[in-house]
Amino acid sequence: MADVAARFAGIVGVGNLLSGNEVGEDYAHDESLTCEPHKPAYVAKPGSAEEVAALLVAAAEHAVPVTARGSGSGLSGAARPREDGLLISFERMNAVLEIDTANQVAVVQPGVTLAQLDAETAVAGLAYTVYPGELSASVGGTVGTNAGGMRAVKYGVTRNNVVGLQAVLPTGEIIRTGGRTSKVATGYDLTQLIIGSEGTLALATEVIVKLYPRLPYGATLLAPFGDLDQVMQAVPPILASGLAPNILEYVDNLTMAAISYNEKLSLGVPDEVRDATQAYLVVGLENRDSDRLDGDVERAGELLSELGATDVYVLDGGSARKLIEAREKAFWTAKSVGADDVIDVVVPRSEMPAFLARVRELATAAEAGALGCGHAGDGNVHLGIFCKDPEKRYRLLRDIFADGMARGGAISGEHGIGQSRKQHFLELEDPAKVALMRRVKQAFDPTDILNPGVLFG
Amino acid sequence: MADVAARFAGIVGVGNLLSGNEVGEDYAHDESLTCEPHKPAYVAKPGSAEEVAALLVAAAEHAVPVTARGSGSGLSGAARPREDGLLISFERMNAVLEIDTANQVAVVQPGVTLAQLDAETAVAGLAYTVYPGELSASVGGTVGTNAGGMRAVKYGVTRNNVVGLQAVLPTGEIIRTGGRTSKVATGYDLTQLIIGSEGTLALATEVIVKLYPRLPYGATLLAPFGDLDQVMQAVPPILASGLAPNILEYVDNLTMAAISYNEKLSLGVPDEVRDATQAYLVVGLENRDSDRLDGDVERAGELLSELGATDVYVLDGGSARKLIEAREKAFWTAKSVGADDVIDVVVPRSEMPAFLARVRELATAAEAGALGCGHAGDGNVHLGIFCKDPEKRYRLLRDIFADGMARGGAISGEHGIGQSRKQHFLELEDPAKVALMRRVKQAFDPTDILNPGVLFG
Repeated sequence: MADVAARFAGIVGVGNLLSGNEVGEDYAHDESLTCEPHKPAYVAKPGSAEEVAALLVAAAEHAVPVTARGSGSGLSGAARPREDGLLISFERMNAVLEIDTANQVAVVQPGVTLAQLDAETAVAGLAYTVYPGELSASVGGTVGTNAGGMRAVKYGVTRNNVVGLQAVLPTGEIIRTGGRTSKVATGYDLTQLIIGSEGTLALATEVIVKLYPRLPYGATLLAPFGDLDQVMQAVPPILASGLAPNILEYVDNLTMAAISYNEKLSLGVPDEVRDATQAYLVVGLENRDSDRLDGDVERAGELLSELGATDVYVLDGGSARKLIEAREKAFWTAKSVGADDVIDVVVPRSEMPAFLARVRELATAAEAGALGCGHAGDGNVHLGIFCKDPEKRYRLLRDIFADGMARGGAISGEHGIGQSRKQHFLELEDPAKVALMRRVKQAFDPTDILNPGVLFG
Repeated sequence: MADVAARFAGIVGVGNLLSGNEVGEDYAHDESLTCEPHKPAYVAKPGSAEEVAALLVAAAEHAVPVTARGSGSGLSGAARPREDGLLISFERMNAVLEIDTANQVAVVQPGVTLAQLDAETAVAGLAYTVYPGELSASVGGTVGTNAGGMRAVKYGVTRNNVVGLQAVLPTGEIIRTGGRTSKVATGYDLTQLIIGSEGTLALATEVIVKLYPRLPYGATLLAPFGDLDQVMQAVPPILASGLAPNILEYVDNLTMAAISYNEKLSLGVPDEVRDATQAYLVVGLENRDSDRLDGDVERAGELLSELGATDVYVLDGGSARKLIEAREKAFWTAKSVGADDVIDVVVPRSEMPAFLARVRELATAAEAGALGCGHAGDGNVHLGIFCKDPEKRYRLLRDIFADGMARGGAISGEHGIGQSRKQHFLELEDPAKVALMRRVKQAFDPTDILNPGVLFG
């Protein structure tokens, strides 16, 4: 083991290699609520693609399994290392290499956080439009999980916004995929294959992301509804209206109460309205022109009333920001109130009412709780699960996942499979697809050193 | 051979299997200018995914190579069959199965043409926004090549607009990937891997495409520039403006003359302006509101003038439609004026001026012609190549492709590699990537029956 450590240290420098007791607790886990921490045998902090390549070659030679880590904010255990493994932490590869305004892309290293990228693109009047709840997330991590977030309803998820990669294959080769352009028709799309592969196929060492003009005017509408089904039924007409909301979220009344309490949020909703509300719709609008924004806000308000909202509140900037932040922190709220797990099933949005009704039935039958909020425009339902008994919880989740899949959805819309959903994934997914994915994995990683134990390993 | 034909006929029915002399000329080619026709030994016209699966199993058993064909409008020879092979024509699987307005998707069979889909979505006030030049193209074909087209500057290419597939693997399994939702984080994205794989990995038997609200108001601006570089330099500011054009094309003066002549186009550009023009920019704008469209047209006109346009013409509906159609038919124009090949290199859009300058140098040195137009917003340059001698032309294209790649681009933005670009692709692409693609191919198609000879076969 000392030999192996010396080999890794020789690659990244002694100061950038931790082993044994030097490895801190933070490297042992991500934010999954159900994966026990595993301290890795080694943590290496490479400074370049070449060092990453050399680490992978050395790891393969010594049969040391490798897990990549960005900020460790993932929710499915995909960045939890193996106890006998090497954790490659991208914390030193954290430079925004270029904001290319002519091509509207940024070239960044994987350790760059979304907050950092947001600040640097803002200076150029541009934005990287993937905003998962956690802005401390690293770009590399979001590539690994294909992160989504609220703005996906307008701008798509990570895979729609990454146009190129530099990546290191487990065989040690450094490749470049895609480029500073959205169109490429030269063989299999390796960029897309690596995105969402949860560190099992290749490690991204440079990411080219698409940027959009940062629109200067925005507004947030809050619409309480007496009935959860009505909220869900309001979603398709809003999207068909052409208003192109950049946020379209639902928050159920209990979750709204919890996040309001946790974040000391006061939204100006009178008590009698609040008490008659089963769920809220939050609609974000943006424009490059303030008059047009005003017109859109008016139209959206009318539309929401027509669709059954009890009232419509246009939030002032401060309240709006606080509400969005609070919604983004819903995971932390769920955690703080004792949720035993947090899931993010995705279904076609037309299926949300029936899916949520079925979830309530299943939870009641299991004497469990399932509360939440979600990306209504995308059919992506985030639920805090309150059910202490692990076996009962496993069965409840299986039933919820199976129901979502039967409706044409998937176990996860953005958190991924990682280690925490693997058993359910293998139980519920079409075996022909799992077998095919295993063969693809083998094509990339013949010695199976990249994140074995994740997805289907 | 009679045995094999009987086996195929048993699957699709005698009336849906052609062999020997029954096979018509049309099945022998696509629209590539350089691939000699090859009549296949068999043409099967399946009516269901199950029949496709049975055909692939039978083909694998008899070691008969299989090529899929939609409308045969591809430009790289990816649908040209093998002479000893089976051509699976999707002409009978041509139903729009569902226009799902709640989820804003359509579910279609692969043989549906884009024209047919456009007509059926229009009724619902929606649109499938992938418009490559040829609307007789089939949806299955566009999935195979990851077709782009003019609207890609706003809406992206096929891979950005297909959210799910039913596909038959060469091993005979029928799988479903993705769904009626844009977000899925459950393993490798098989949808994206199959899109653009040119019929080498799996055959799509059902395609779920994303629809957008069909915006009722549109305008087309035509801006002549005295200088080609200026046209190219105008592109980034237009895209940064937030006007979100749905068309942003350049047409060089000779190409404009040719398509105007061919299509009897009269655009109202005075002779003296036309004579001083090196290239034109065509800008399409659309809106759900006519006043907003007017405002955008005004702003775009100002911007184009600031950026050096000699003048700006807002075309009336009829002229605009004719110009766009003529631009879409540029391939046929190039063919009719005797182009020896048509290529579609993509480069980062900031590189277009330098790339086009280099192309001119290379063409002059080779005593050849290279004229064209292209998707300026995407850096996707379509060039008619006039060079009779095949060897000289091969070298010229190699030099053009290599220059495009050195600028961070690719050999093709939308036409694909197929059979016509394979030699260049293998000569110029990173061998590590080609080797990886071969391993992925092997993971899908262990007996190598799907379109061997395409891409890198």
